[in-house]
Amino acid sequence: MKDMTFAPGLPFAQTLDAEDELAFFRQQFVFDEPALIYLDGNSLGRLPWRTVERMRQVLKTEWGRDLVRGWHSGWYEAPARVGDKIARLVGAGPGQVVISDSTSVNLFKLVMAALALRPGRVRIVSDVLNFPSDLYVLQGCARLLGDRHRLHLVPSADGIAVDQQTLCEAIDESTALVALSHVVFKSGFLYDAAAVTERAHQVGALMLWDLSHAVGAVPIELDRWGVDLAVGCSYKYLNGGPGAPAFLYVRRDLQAEALSPIWGWFGQRAPFAFGLEYAPVDGVGRFLVGTPPILSLLALEPAVDLLLEAGMERLRHKSVRLTSYLVYLADTILAPFGFTLGSPRDPARRGAHVSLRHPEAYSINRALIEEMNVLPDFREPDNLRLGLAPLYTSFGEVWEAVDRLRQVMAEGRYRRYPAERRPVT
Amino acid sequence: MKDMTFAPGLPFAQTLDAEDELAFFRQQFVFDEPALIYLDGNSLGRLPWRTVERMRQVLKTEWGRDLVRGWHSGWYEAPARVGDKIARLVGAGPGQVVISDSTSVNLFKLVMAALALRPGRVRIVSDVLNFPSDLYVLQGCARLLGDRHRLHLVPSADGIAVDQQTLCEAIDESTALVALSHVVFKSGFLYDAAAVTERAHQVGALMLWDLSHAVGAVPIELDRWGVDLAVGCSYKYLNGGPGAPAFLYVRRDLQAEALSPIWGWFGQRAPFAFGLEYAPVDGVGRFLVGTPPILSLLALEPAVDLLLEAGMERLRHKSVRLTSYLVYLADTILAPFGFTLGSPRDPARRGAHVSLRHPEAYSINRALIEEMNVLPDFREPDNLRLGLAPLYTSFGEVWEAVDRLRQVMAEGRYRRYPAERRPVT
Repeated sequence: MKDMTFAPGLPFAQTLDAEDELAFFRQQFVFDEPALIYLDGNSLGRLPWRTVERMRQVLKTEWGRDLVRGWHSGWYEAPARVGDKIARLVGAGPGQVVISDSTSVNLFKLVMAALALRPGRVRIVSDVLNFPSDLYVLQGCARLLGDRHRLHLVPSADGIAVDQQTLCEAIDESTALVALSHVVFKSGFLYDAAAVTERAHQVGALMLWDLSHAVGAVPIELDRWGVDLAVGCSYKYLNGGPGAPAFLYVRRDLQAEALSPIWGWFGQRAPFAFGLEYAPVDGVGRFLVGTPPILSLLALEPAVDLLLEAGMERLRHKSVRLTSYLVYLADTILAPFGFTLGSPRDPARRGAHVSLRHPEAYSINRALIEEMNVLPDFREPDNLRLGLAPLYTSFGEVWEAVDRLRQVMAEGRYRRYPAERRPVT
Repeated sequence: MKDMTFAPGLPFAQTLDAEDELAFFRQQFVFDEPALIYLDGNSLGRLPWRTVERMRQVLKTEWGRDLVRGWHSGWYEAPARVGDKIARLVGAGPGQVVISDSTSVNLFKLVMAALALRPGRVRIVSDVLNFPSDLYVLQGCARLLGDRHRLHLVPSADGIAVDQQTLCEAIDESTALVALSHVVFKSGFLYDAAAVTERAHQVGALMLWDLSHAVGAVPIELDRWGVDLAVGCSYKYLNGGPGAPAFLYVRRDLQAEALSPIWGWFGQRAPFAFGLEYAPVDGVGRFLVGTPPILSLLALEPAVDLLLEAGMERLRHKSVRLTSYLVYLADTILAPFGFTLGSPRDPARRGAHVSLRHPEAYSINRALIEEMNVLPDFREPDNLRLGLAPLYTSFGEVWEAVDRLRQVMAEGRYRRYPAERRPVT
């Protein structure tokens, strides 16, 4: 892309779009406001047309007409059925993934199960870049177990990445569990999950990956890497809808010994026998608890189907091109305005979102939203986070977003949104 | 109703329907198959028309058009907003109820919080009629806390009710928590919640009510009764849709000391500061964990509005008439076929569903569904459970259901569905 300059930007982007093998999938999503450049699919993915149609059917035919009989025509099986579809996106064989609860609740269940499987080991390893809710869950688990565990957070020198050597040294013989996000939420840093998992296993620790920012964005091989446990969110690159229920993975040969800390009837061996004693079902289904939110769960399914049709290889291929294109534009067009790259420069270590750091990032983000019809997001303290969902983001949109960002800077529009006035959250 | 005989059944039912103050609300629900008599609203409530319209709007306008901005136009507030609406149905002031997770997960959170508030007390009191998932949660909590607690299940002499005296004697000075279902799932037995709560408080125990089969069916006065904790399901009489997210109640003056065992970002004081240390928000919101399933949560709201418009007093008035009418018909028409009443005879001790016991209940239920277009449900070992949702069930439907049930018995149709062939669940 060396020859590309400011002037020929859009035609070049259009060339890239013309070559895009996944262009078909963009048409599968609702674009209610075509002028809007949506770069927050890493927070909430777009609405697929198929989901609109599916929800109409769920309301009219299933809930409205079949009523409680809906449970016997697909609802009961939905957590495992959709789970097995997501399994194919994360390199897991069937019978190891279910949809259940939220990511944080799933994390709680798996962390508690893991710590019970490693009695006597007191160290839990994570990092300072992990999603805070994951750290809260870990802190809560340690508290619940009598503050016998120590949570070791591996530092980051630059706020972007964690040094693999430092991390591996932190994983020692006293470690019960290593719990990390495969792709880091602020910077998009992508761990070498195979290597970290191997290190954890070397010392007898269990490995848990949070795939929330990774699934649908990067290739994942849970079975091949020997990962023990994983959780992930389904409303980002999976486009499952706001707060869509999350998934969890338990490696097959851990399933017999791993026990959920929350015993509920959906994890019971024969729930409709209504026996008074809990007896967990065989398999990953024992990590189900209560009745799943069927409307939200069924909305997720056609969205996952779209990803399976696109295929992770093609998605990753396009994703690397998208983020590399953005990094190139940022270097050439935005760096003069004081932006620095808040994501790894090596695409092999990067997910599908890119952070640009700038001292005025809060104000710049506001100006993009309020005046430029661009929708990225801001993450404290100085990250302008740009999510490029490979299923529906075009190269033309990347070009246009950078050009509008240039205007915000050149015209000083961001100064109208002083950070001091930001709402207290 | 003394003069009523078999012959004048339908006209009498029609008279009752003509007098029904709530008849308007029946029209607010989808009746896709008018000939179907649906008596399982206690498992899954019917679909309100307003929900169809609301979901169209949520998909098109909120997720489809507003995308991630939907969080700032009502989604964030939804757990508390809808919670405060349900609060009005359970006699709770604002700021004490939130929508979160499933009933079982909520029960887990509140039981763990309660046991932490009563250290040294080792007894948990429940009963053998409680919903099994509730018992599983209690068993799981006891296990998690090192098997130091003893779960005492108060027996039932008849499988229908629990003797209040026996229960109160079981609640002693060693009791940390009393956890019961306000309305029992099989028999519809309705506890005197005020008296039981008073007994729990006499000995310093905490009182938790599961309102799943009670909310929307019977008057509830959590604040007035001084109840400490409550959970409840929203897909039964609240008509929130399959697996609609559940609610939880924490009495205001317990909120500062009660701590959720699952620490997540939705319960965090300033979630978007993304601080690395958990600091729970003030109030009941600390019992939120992860991102709630917004589609399922927003589907619930218009359904709750309908109940608020109908008002619990009118709902209860009609509900008592519906169940009393059914009991009368069962006594006069069905008793000769071997049915006995599996619910309390006193309407003051009965919720909105009625169980009829019969040795062939499984087969009778199948025949009603397969041949008679009546949809009740069967609960082991011998309960034919008939849910009469006061918001949309008519007296005519009650009459017609009993008449079809009479035909099933008179013509021996149930013999075509032998219980030995029932599926193993």
